[in-house]
Amino acid sequence: MSRSTNTSLSSLGEFGLIDRIRARFPQPAPPELGIGDDAALLNPSPGMQLVVSTDLLAEGVHFERSFGPLRLLGRKALAVNLSDLAAMGAKPRWFFLSLAIPAGFPLEEIEALLDGLAEQAAEHGVLLAGGDTCGSKSGLVISVTVMGEQRPELVLRRSGARPGDDVWVSGTLGDSALGLQLLLAGYEKKGDVATEYVVSRHLDPTPRCELGQALADAGLVSAMIDISDGLLADLGHLCHQSGCGAEIELTQIPRSAPFDAVTAGASPTPWQLVVAGGEDYELCFTAPPAGRAAILETANSAGVPVTVIGKVSDSGQVVACLPDGSNFQPSASGYTHF
Amino acid sequence: MSRSTNTSLSSLGEFGLIDRIRARFPQPAPPELGIGDDAALLNPSPGMQLVVSTDLLAEGVHFERSFGPLRLLGRKALAVNLSDLAAMGAKPRWFFLSLAIPAGFPLEEIEALLDGLAEQAAEHGVLLAGGDTCGSKSGLVISVTVMGEQRPELVLRRSGARPGDDVWVSGTLGDSALGLQLLLAGYEKKGDVATEYVVSRHLDPTPRCELGQALADAGLVSAMIDISDGLLADLGHLCHQSGCGAEIELTQIPRSAPFDAVTAGASPTPWQLVVAGGEDYELCFTAPPAGRAAILETANSAGVPVTVIGKVSDSGQVVACLPDGSNFQPSASGYTHF
Repeated sequence: MSRSTNTSLSSLGEFGLIDRIRARFPQPAPPELGIGDDAALLNPSPGMQLVVSTDLLAEGVHFERSFGPLRLLGRKALAVNLSDLAAMGAKPRWFFLSLAIPAGFPLEEIEALLDGLAEQAAEHGVLLAGGDTCGSKSGLVISVTVMGEQRPELVLRRSGARPGDDVWVSGTLGDSALGLQLLLAGYEKKGDVATEYVVSRHLDPTPRCELGQALADAGLVSAMIDISDGLLADLGHLCHQSGCGAEIELTQIPRSAPFDAVTAGASPTPWQLVVAGGEDYELCFTAPPAGRAAILETANSAGVPVTVIGKVSDSGQVVACLPDGSNFQPSASGYTHF
Repeated sequence: MSRSTNTSLSSLGEFGLIDRIRARFPQPAPPELGIGDDAALLNPSPGMQLVVSTDLLAEGVHFERSFGPLRLLGRKALAVNLSDLAAMGAKPRWFFLSLAIPAGFPLEEIEALLDGLAEQAAEHGVLLAGGDTCGSKSGLVISVTVMGEQRPELVLRRSGARPGDDVWVSGTLGDSALGLQLLLAGYEKKGDVATEYVVSRHLDPTPRCELGQALADAGLVSAMIDISDGLLADLGHLCHQSGCGAEIELTQIPRSAPFDAVTAGASPTPWQLVVAGGEDYELCFTAPPAGRAAILETANSAGVPVTVIGKVSDSGQVVACLPDGSNFQPSASGYTHF
């Protein structure tokens, strides 16, 4: 990949930048059409439902440029959108990228951002089909719209949970929130493996696309959501849409060894980070208990551990039980934007 | 439509705002799914190609809040996207809306923005299917992605123009650029009909959706583009994609009576505004001369005047001829973002 370090964004211009973007990403091939006309032309697969999500990331709100390399920001901008498709069990196919770029923004930083986007796109087989680029009077703004597909009868919504279903989560929770806490406290990379791990879970989360599709294809799951606002908030959304509640055991929630290592001095366990920190981008789903073995096998094939953390109830409330039998109350469930 | 003038955005919160948005827009009905899950679920029509465009509008770059009511900004944010679908001859079906909103932004201004978006959406039968809302550390940012459909064999691209084809434009050109010039000079509404007309063409452009679809359906047009960067720039894009050139007569380009009234004192005619001002959101298209009568009839049915302004050539250049036989050179062809 060649870099023109002597070229600035202003000398390149909007169309020069678009040419660079087009050269960086494999494009939809005829009869489809990607970048280069008034709109993209895409051929949805016959009989599939189109699954579409969009997320906007603004500097100073969703990220600070000082937190990490722009390559990771590019990876994350696509990852958070792919995570939404994973939560519906959809296979990602195309994405659209809009960038508002402040004056004087270094071209090599834009190239690094595109590198990260291209990596994540290649890892999940999703094609850049169009977008928009413009100036910004303030910070960098990244808007991504991602489109995928799934058979209508297999799509997983938030609304299918039933009392008695197990509540599952993928991976481990709390790493990203702990990583953000370290970044906000002025973390600098210093070779500690556990610390670097949790920071990397914040800067470079893994969308669970393969797991989400495999669970949908297997037809074992009753409802699913991705954990972006924090487990309690997102499980709350799922229960609200399903007209039910849930009871979870905090000690059953999987934590990573690095999380426990970094928080070893903290007593009690920082449950706030685990259940209300957010940006885990893991999947939370519900399923009848009869499917447990098949779910474990499916998740194993997808290479992602999954864990039962509680039960769907008919209470209408999400209750998080502490080991002593009391209920945990988060100090705030999810990020507040306004 | 009820307005809670005592409610602020911060007391409403992100989910309260999403609820208001959902209440304002008719939603896709089952088996489709709009706002309320991780992603939207949409059913493309069998055999149709999906036509997708996205545009991001940033305060201080694309608009100033002081220029006009937020309702018109809402109309325009959707209009510029619909114009891209019109240029492909596609029927708009769904759109996605992302808003980054500065702290302290008045809720009634957001409501006005939504009013305008809802008006434009209703006028063109396009459904809001999802989006994202967040805070902004700086100005208001509006990102819209619009999706439509057309039969693959009828979609109009930029690449089909052939030497000998007529070059056509819809409506009149230059009004929007003149309106912007007045706004930048501190225009205040003062009852002059001509002035208000050209300002309204800048603040509230009309996407030529019906005309674009009718021309595509009629199969008479060889290539089409919408005029957002200015006629010379956009006709240049069309010619570049078609591997040809064009020769146009400036005096053949339709101007509005208000444009001529407002610029009456100017000599020579301000061609710069007409061919390089941009934001006309009219259609520029090419077609074999044999189809002239049918094109006029089609455009008449769609209620939009269309005019032949020149010929496609094999020169590879777009030449704009002045009445004295010389060629007009714009001082800049299109807005420069970086």
